[in-house]
Amino acid sequence: MPLVRIDTLGAGRDRLEALGRAVHDALQETLDIPADDCFQILTDHDGTTGTLRYGGYLGVDRDEGIAYITITMRAGRSPDRKRALYRRIAELAHARAGTEPRNVFVTVTENASVDWSLGHGQAQYAPGPGPVVA
Amino acid sequence: MPLVRIDTLGAGRDRLEALGRAVHDALQETLDIPADDCFQILTDHDGTTGTLRYGGYLGVDRDEGIAYITITMRAGRSPDRKRALYRRIAELAHARAGTEPRNVFVTVTENASVDWSLGHGQAQYAPGPGPVVA
Amino acid sequence: MPLVRIDTLGAGRDRLEALGRAVHDALQETLDIPADDCFQILTDHDGTTGTLRYGGYLGVDRDEGIAYITITMRAGRSPDRKRALYRRIAELAHARAGTEPRNVFVTVTENASVDWSLGHGQAQYAPGPGPVVA
Repeated sequence: MPLVRIDTLGAGRDRLEALGRAVHDALQETLDIPADDCFQILTDHDGTTGTLRYGGYLGVDRDEGIAYITITMRAGRSPDRKRALYRRIAELAHARAGTEPRNVFVTVTENASVDWSLGHGQAQYAPGPGPVVA
Repeated sequence: MPLVRIDTLGAGRDRLEALGRAVHDALQETLDIPADDCFQILTDHDGTTGTLRYGGYLGVDRDEGIAYITITMRAGRSPDRKRALYRRIAELAHARAGTEPRNVFVTVTENASVDWSLGHGQAQYAPGPGPVVA
Repeated sequence: MPLVRIDTLGAGRDRLEALGRAVHDALQETLDIPADDCFQILTDHDGTTGTLRYGGYLGVDRDEGIAYITITMRAGRSPDRKRALYRRIAELAHARAGTEPRNVFVTVTENASVDWSLGHGQAQYAPGPGPVVA
């Protein structure tokens, strides 16, 4: 279920995909997301038709290696698990993609079970009356 | 009001636009969205600077024809209407764009009336005190 | 903290970046966002691989100059401040980027303090137990 968007600036395809794997592995390890529950939209901006802006807010020395990671998922994860998720994303982004922890920016938006249709026009998490496909 | 983002992978312009029409028609039919209340950001990724990742979660056999459809709209629609929306999007995406129902992935994020400004710097759904433009 | 996405159609780099500055200045002026709390993903679509659709809903005469501005931020701003934000974005988008107020479309999505990690794998707004980096 989590739908992940990652936006980078001139990262190149390999690093972008490595970031995707890092985030997905962190979701598996900290939130018990299944391995095949992987849905990502990965965009590497060229600095002209698309670009990223960032500041030094909170004293973090970000640079063009910044990665914006936005995660939409169902409400219900505890603050502790979210904190574990952020830590693990930063660790794996560094290890797998060379993205420095200072450049890992994550934000989560939550919704409800009925807000998801993962194929076949069904609301798999809130199927309601009628036939349900496993 | 609904703001719709659609992300595809190598779909081509015609299919991308047909998907946009399918989603908008489904919004009209199931949620009574007006015909001219159409706001969409459509992006077809090339697989290099932008790409999509997907798994087989819930036993759905997705492939490169996957379409991520994310809808932001005001809270208040019932679960039944959301389920009807998903069904109709899948039907129309198939009929209009050739997108197979297994590849139609939808998620909804809700906000409030005051969270929208549809032009002219006004919060048309929650105008507050002062002059209101129809 | 606010994460801002701006999507335009054939605006060109300079106008896109001017829009980014307009939105950030409006956030500073109306919501007291710090100057270096600037996080933006700016995308100018070419009309082929990416495009925007819009209607005349609410009698607003939008055209290809439309700018979709989506802001994710923590919950808690009052309706009055949000209305002030929309007004100021429209004013500054016009003054700085030549975007007409009729073409300025804004929507806000809110989340919680624990939903943000602004670098270093930490949840800076909800650090929980353990060491906290300023």
